[in-house]
Formats: sequence, structure tokens, C-alpha cells
Amino acid sequence: MSSYITLNRPDLPGIVGLLNHRPDTGKVLCELAEILLRSDHGLPRGEREWIASYVSYLNQCHFCHTSHGAAASAHAGKEVTMIDEIEKGPESKAISDKLRALLVIAGQVQKLGNCVTEEAIEKAREAGAGDDDIHDTVLIAAAFCMYNRYVDGLHTWAPAEREAYKEEGRQMAFEGYMRNFK
Amino acid sequence: MSSYITLNRPDLPGIVGLLNHRPDTGKVLCELAEILLRSDHGLPRGEREWIASYVSYLNQCHFCHTSHGAAASAHAGKEVTMIDEIEKGPESKAISDKLRALLVIAGQVQKLGNCVTEEAIEKAREAGAGDDDIHDTVLIAAAFCMYNRYVDGLHTWAPAEREAYKEEGRQMAFEGYMRNFK
Repeated sequence: MSSYITLNRPDLPGIVGLLNHRPDTGKVLCELAEILLRSDHGLPRGEREWIASYVSYLNQCHFCHTSHGAAASAHAGKEVTMIDEIEKGPESKAISDKLRALLVIAGQVQKLGNCVTEEAIEKAREAGAGDDDIHDTVLIAAAFCMYNRYVDGLHTWAPAEREAYKEEGRQMAFEGYMRNFK
Repeated sequence: MSSYITLNRPDLPGIVGLLNHRPDTGKVLCELAEILLRSDHGLPRGEREWIASYVSYLNQCHFCHTSHGAAASAHAGKEVTMIDEIEKGPESKAISDKLRALLVIAGQVQKLGNCVTEEAIEKAREAGAGDDDIHDTVLIAAAFCMYNRYVDGLHTWAPAEREAYKEEGRQMAFEGYMRNFK
């Protein structure tokens, strides 16, 4: 209840309050999330959410980190404690070599665009990543460098407990990001 | 001609090649730029481009820094040498106190969302900024933390010389960001 600007619905947490307050930008931001996180081509939806949650963790954005971690958990049919695994990034033992290599790229993007190395791209290719996988990883990571700054830069509030994100994560995973713009 | 993925049109520089290669995300990214940089409400278009160019400078993204600097120059009816002024950020003597205060916020957003201070928000309000100005500043700065990472993370090429961005900047300013999606 402490955002830097007065929102129409200050009771709504994180980006949800911002999307509601400004449907002009809100609709476009949701369309981008829908394409990047729920595409049926290339990377599985659960891995897309994993990348989003990991980048949000690096950006210290509790709302996005936890909600997208809950969405990744929902896709995997796991409890939200899976977020502990996501926080490990490329060190996780629960992921494929391909996702591991893509998380390295995502972590470089989180630092700055020109931190992405040719070596990291090569390793991702060796692990089976194609051009679309690399493209989507870079753009998902870049997009969360935006969403995270939007959410925290305007000082929105967020529930502390992971359990509070369970239903939101399920909706993000299975009903999608355009559910409030229909 | 050296991007990390093979683009349909490797001759197109910076984000232009990426938008062309992936019109699915490209259209949405352009819609967002159109709303944030060419709105007729609140902040003038030239100041929106100024914020975008300054954040891109901080993110070391030559393509976005120079092209949006050229767009800001076009709005102001100035030569692209105005980019020297934009690089000064809040230290510029050519800007209003309000834009100066908003550039401080934009610089904080560029670091990380939770770097934005209550003090900076208060100073912007004292200089005449309202909720919409603060919202748009935060979201423009956040969005360029995405665009910049997308452009550089995939290692697109960019013309070195400022003069090469003059016509592109004019089109961005006066024909808008949806001009290739009509």
C-alpha cells in the first residue's frame, strides 16, 4: 500500500496494480508476456517461466521472482518450493544442459547486453539450442529487466510468503497473461 | 553483420533487424515504444526521447542511444550534436528542473528498480512532476533496459557515426514506431 504513485486499485500487488492502473501500457505488456512465456513453439512454457523467475531473482524483484517461480512450478506440477531450485540458476542439478546453458546467457543479459559472450552462445548451441531458443532467452531476460524495474521502481507492494503466489502462478500458467484484457 | 543469430535481413542495423526478423514480438515492442515515446498527454515527446536516449547511454547501447538522441534532436529542431547534451544527464544546463529531476529517477531505474528513492520522487514532485510523469519516466527507463539488452545481447551491428542516424531519428519522431507494421 506504499507505491510512489496513487493507483486506482492500491490493493492489487506488484505489476497487477500497475496493469490495472494503466491499461494502455498494461495491455501491451501483457501481450509481450503472453508471446514470450506461453508460446507453443520452441522452449517449453515451464522453461520460459524458469528463465523469467531466475532473472527476476537476480534483479531482486520479489513479486516477479516468486509469481513466475509459482508459474514454473505449476507447469511442472510441483509445489512452489521449486523456487529454491530456480534460485540456483545454472548450478541447479534439476535442469537439462540446454536450459543450464540458456540460464548462463540470461544471467549475462541481466548484467548488460554487451556482457553476453560468444562462448556462452557456442555452449548453448552445443547443448542443442537453436537460433529461436537463443532469441527467446535473450528477449525474456531483457523483458524481465523491464518488468522488474517497473514493479520495484514504482515501489509496489508484494506478499512476502510464497504460498500466497500459488493461485496467481496457476492462473499465469494455465489461463495466460491476457486474462484481464478480454 | 555479426549478430549471434542468423537474421532474415542481416543488413538492417540494431533493433530494426530484430523487429523485421520476429514480427510477432516486433509489433508489440513497437506498440510499446509508440505509447511511451509519442503520447500526446503529459511529458512532451522530445523529453520522452531524451529520457530514452540517456538511459540507453547509461546501458552503453550505441544504437538506441544515438537513434533516440537523433529523434530527440528532431523533435527539438536541433542537429544530432544535441546528443552531447543528452549524455550529461541531470548535469545538463539545457533542461528544465522537472526533466532534470526525472532524469535522476531514470538513472536510478537503470541501476535497479529498488534503487529509486523516495527523495528523488519528492524532488520530481517539487519540480512539478505528477503521477503520470513519474509513471512514464519509470516505464520508459525500464523499457530501455529491455530494448538495450535485446539489441546488444544478440550482438547486432550499428553504424558508428551520428550523422547516419539523422533520417532514422526523423522518422521515429514524426512517422512513429508503427510505420513498418502498417
